[in-house]
Amino acid sequence: MLTVHHLGKSQSERIVWLCEELGIDYELKLYARAPVLAPEEYRALHPVGSAPVIQDGDVTLAESAAVVDYIIAKHGNGRLSVPKDDPGFADYLYWFHFANGTLQPAFMRLMVSGRFDPPADHPALKLGQSRMQRILGMMETRLAQVPYLAGSQLTAADIMTVFSLTTMRYFQPYDLSHYPCILQYLVRIGARPAYQRAMLKGDPGMKPLLG
Amino acid sequence: MLTVHHLGKSQSERIVWLCEELGIDYELKLYARAPVLAPEEYRALHPVGSAPVIQDGDVTLAESAAVVDYIIAKHGNGRLSVPKDDPGFADYLYWFHFANGTLQPAFMRLMVSGRFDPPADHPALKLGQSRMQRILGMMETRLAQVPYLAGSQLTAADIMTVFSLTTMRYFQPYDLSHYPCILQYLVRIGARPAYQRAMLKGDPGMKPLLG
Repeated sequence: MLTVHHLGKSQSERIVWLCEELGIDYELKLYARAPVLAPEEYRALHPVGSAPVIQDGDVTLAESAAVVDYIIAKHGNGRLSVPKDDPGFADYLYWFHFANGTLQPAFMRLMVSGRFDPPADHPALKLGQSRMQRILGMMETRLAQVPYLAGSQLTAADIMTVFSLTTMRYFQPYDLSHYPCILQYLVRIGARPAYQRAMLKGDPGMKPLLG
Repeated sequence: MLTVHHLGKSQSERIVWLCEELGIDYELKLYARAPVLAPEEYRALHPVGSAPVIQDGDVTLAESAAVVDYIIAKHGNGRLSVPKDDPGFADYLYWFHFANGTLQPAFMRLMVSGRFDPPADHPALKLGQSRMQRILGMMETRLAQVPYLAGSQLTAADIMTVFSLTTMRYFQPYDLSHYPCILQYLVRIGARPAYQRAMLKGDPGMKPLLG
């Protein structure tokens, strides 16, 4: 049996959502932050000490993208990914890896910068803000053309990306009102029954930040 | 023909190294930083504006991990990855995604923090340092057990990771002398003819930081 260890309000919401979209059997274990970082019990699961962590037989695995690739290959029969001979293969790979390679680091950069209380015109702060605008502008252009990041269908690229646009903004507030196509995309995501089930099961007290 | 656009002293060194390890045909185009960020000509290649970028027929692709997955699937016949039925599949996925999901962000966090000239005991700085120590400690434990991150053979997990331990330290100096197994690993990497060819072709004036 696949066990998903979910730390509240964390990147492991991706894994709960993935399992719900795939409709696979899994056991969900919930952990609350204590008060900000993962509690001792969660950190004991894997040396990296951060969410997500899953267990599957003898395998204990961390790192969102690794867990997503693993579950899709081992339990999902390749569903929610794009095969290498499909014309959309490169787009899928790009947006799948964009989530943790580009978007999430841009939010983290703003969050870390804020911890040092810089003046509003600090060059390093402005560089981070300008990078974030370029990245969100690129997403906006993409989502003006296609309903989901890899194209016409929801894939793991969306499952990787949505956390940074929603729950991450509880930690690093960011106004998305200049990005109407991103906001419409979040409305599409929020209407999916699997997303709604994942949020209810994983973070029952949290209102998903879809606007 | 596959074209690799390499920005000097950047993450695109991974792609040059990958092509050399795979022994595939590719055209290498070199760009110098101007003076720190990518030059206009490089930023025009892809909206994200950062390295790497490749072109392959109609496909223009950015994002290191996406490019690595793409080249291995399309030009490498799966070599340097681990198939899903191999007992090392989960380890491969973990360390492949660890590179940009955990290690590189930890270096970026220290680099961004430094831009704000914090006092040495600033809590956000100390949190970043303690996270880096935990992450490098985890790598040290792994590399005391196996010669390469995924196990007995070099894989794309190493190709993703080595940049952060070498060239990244030109931008964010970090003393690795407390991590003898990581240093021995870097010596093993530096002895590989494909790595040496990649560094000579991609950054001919740069001494790889292998110690």
